[in-house]
Amino acid sequence: MSKKDRLSVEPYKGVRDFYPEDQAFLNYLFTTFRTFLAKAGYVEYHASILEPAELYRSKTSDEIVNEQSYLFTDRGGREVMLRPEMTPTVARMVAAKRRELGFPLRLFSIPNVFRYERPQRGRLREHYQLNVDLFGSRSGAADAEIIGVAYGLMRALGAEEKDFVIKVSSRTLLENICSEHGLAEDARATLLSLMDRRAKMSEEDFDRDLEAIGIPKEKLSSEEVPAELAEMIKDFKEAGIENIEYAPDIIRGFTYYTGMVFEVFDTHPKNNRSLFGGGRFDNLTALFEDESLPAVGMAMGDVTIRDFLEVRGLMPTYVPTTHVYLATTAPELAVKVQTLAGEMRRKGVNVAIDFGEKKIGDQLKAATKHKIPYAIVVGEDELSSGEFVIRNLETGTEEKRSRAELPNFFLQ
Amino acid sequence: MSKKDRLSVEPYKGVRDFYPEDQAFLNYLFTTFRTFLAKAGYVEYHASILEPAELYRSKTSDEIVNEQSYLFTDRGGREVMLRPEMTPTVARMVAAKRRELGFPLRLFSIPNVFRYERPQRGRLREHYQLNVDLFGSRSGAADAEIIGVAYGLMRALGAEEKDFVIKVSSRTLLENICSEHGLAEDARATLLSLMDRRAKMSEEDFDRDLEAIGIPKEKLSSEEVPAELAEMIKDFKEAGIENIEYAPDIIRGFTYYTGMVFEVFDTHPKNNRSLFGGGRFDNLTALFEDESLPAVGMAMGDVTIRDFLEVRGLMPTYVPTTHVYLATTAPELAVKVQTLAGEMRRKGVNVAIDFGEKKIGDQLKAATKHKIPYAIVVGEDELSSGEFVIRNLETGTEEKRSRAELPNFFLQ
Repeated sequence: MSKKDRLSVEPYKGVRDFYPEDQAFLNYLFTTFRTFLAKAGYVEYHASILEPAELYRSKTSDEIVNEQSYLFTDRGGREVMLRPEMTPTVARMVAAKRRELGFPLRLFSIPNVFRYERPQRGRLREHYQLNVDLFGSRSGAADAEIIGVAYGLMRALGAEEKDFVIKVSSRTLLENICSEHGLAEDARATLLSLMDRRAKMSEEDFDRDLEAIGIPKEKLSSEEVPAELAEMIKDFKEAGIENIEYAPDIIRGFTYYTGMVFEVFDTHPKNNRSLFGGGRFDNLTALFEDESLPAVGMAMGDVTIRDFLEVRGLMPTYVPTTHVYLATTAPELAVKVQTLAGEMRRKGVNVAIDFGEKKIGDQLKAATKHKIPYAIVVGEDELSSGEFVIRNLETGTEEKRSRAELPNFFLQ
Repeated sequence: MSKKDRLSVEPYKGVRDFYPEDQAFLNYLFTTFRTFLAKAGYVEYHASILEPAELYRSKTSDEIVNEQSYLFTDRGGREVMLRPEMTPTVARMVAAKRRELGFPLRLFSIPNVFRYERPQRGRLREHYQLNVDLFGSRSGAADAEIIGVAYGLMRALGAEEKDFVIKVSSRTLLENICSEHGLAEDARATLLSLMDRRAKMSEEDFDRDLEAIGIPKEKLSSEEVPAELAEMIKDFKEAGIENIEYAPDIIRGFTYYTGMVFEVFDTHPKNNRSLFGGGRFDNLTALFEDESLPAVGMAMGDVTIRDFLEVRGLMPTYVPTTHVYLATTAPELAVKVQTLAGEMRRKGVNVAIDFGEKKIGDQLKAATKHKIPYAIVVGEDELSSGEFVIRNLETGTEEKRSRAELPNFFLQ
């Protein structure tokens, strides 16, 4: 094949290939999520990335649906979207089995979600996003539980309390202002969007836009902590958790939030940004059925959290799952080496073999590239004597073991 | 919202929602795969479901690309496909890092793959597919290793040797016939497709189509076992594995296979069908670079294997990850119940709580719907006395424990 006919080895723009070290990090992250959430009584669900497009038209932000969605028409003429977020899907699933499911219902999932973003901005078009949701309770204790889950996940990933702060607010404040001023739904959405962009705007621009909506600025500046949030923050303090605070400027972009909202911020002076967040959404299942079901949840993306762990030195060291590499002195011994590997595997050792097609030096180089910690050169001599030399590929030290003793060396 | 405006709770046609019990099965399947493959020295990789469409045009079957693909144009005008299979992706990834990776290279992944099939046939448009590949060896021992992996995966899922048979053949036989008769590439592809459909055709139709290609039928009926396959089958027998046999009618659909091919069949008299398969593909990375890299691999789908496990009574019983449910006699106690739950979680117990918004009977019904095995009713009396009654929700039996003794009950 000529050079110009060759296919590119690059992935599609804006998505990632996960080679073993990157996949090992994802596995670490997902295992940490699963272990922590099982402890807290949450169970895992999942769904397809394909959803009917109408699922997102009413409640997901217009920017996402109209400008950033992966929207296409299938061969049967149906409008399909690659999910940009998981919340509409879980609301659909819960509404579908309302009678069979018990409430409160604790669910989590780790879906990949898609947004068409211009890749030159360095933003990804696909990422993984842990979604944790609690359906069926209006209790402030449910709000507190989700905030506790956010806190616990950060701790499970190795973060200390000083590394992050959880800022809590409530949509109720804004809703009250809207009602008081008789704002129509359009104006409410405009106000929400304006509040969400506030930190990125000049004060003049913000004041001008706020005036256009017809809200006096002093209405927004109430610094009084709503009673239910004050109570929650006090309860956390009594439980020894100090990094949760009231912050009235926390709004969150999605229109479906109805009550408590929160965001977790990195406290690093050079990276003081929002890591993830969540809130209460009591009306979302009403898209599917008569009765609405109260809910509160959170979502955390893998890219943002990886950045955080890298900056904080909290990334796990890569250790391959393979314990030992069996180098083979000649191709005709490969079957016998595989038999030895089989014996070791049955005792619990993870073993890869070489088929003896290259020189021993090259075989050991391959093992080193794989980052496998140990190697054993297996030839006629070793197979007949039953004595094997285990080489530590990092330090070069060697130890001798009999065939029967081999597995135990790796299981200590 | 009026009834007619409501959104459907159905997923997109031909894909599945995974509620907790179905997700628990997937987790069981994937954990079994990961544990077995780590033992055999394979490491996990992953990639996006989005790939440039040109990746599939040359080597994946025309039927898949032209009639069954999820192909669309993104907002930047690029042709994108939802991957119909994983092999082109892993070949792309290996070619991209050829110099950094060590060989032989053992890789696996559990991607979801997509095909647009008419849903009325009851076929799914998305399924999970374990892909196992071994790159960088031309050895027959590498072919044997992949067949051994297929065998070992079946055993790890609980199948006995009598439950399945592995039928092995080689593309080399067909290639030799093609060369002997000077068949052009088109005619080769036609022959391949014909051979692959043979079992589903009448003998008359098969003979007529074969004659049209210009191959005498007696050429195909060679029952002589190729030497390398005979050797491999003998080695397996010596290792005590009896259910691997030569079957010259095994062809496999994909055009990229170049040598050994195999399929695993259910031996159940009512379900004597192919479960999954694989083979050698030595030229695929040549799509991306000068040098081609030998490879052998296999792929197994989650739907077919679940059917097999169901028919054979090998499905794992669903056990929720939550050990115990704490029912709460009044909403104002929820914070104290959460504190008790926290204590138990720190000792290793998986605990869900109720926030006390419903009657105790309804709270216990919810726990039963969740299939949580135990419940504890927590009220003022229990919190002040420090004595708790643990109720087995299946049998109704009860046992009393002090606050300090509680966690141990669930960790036995």
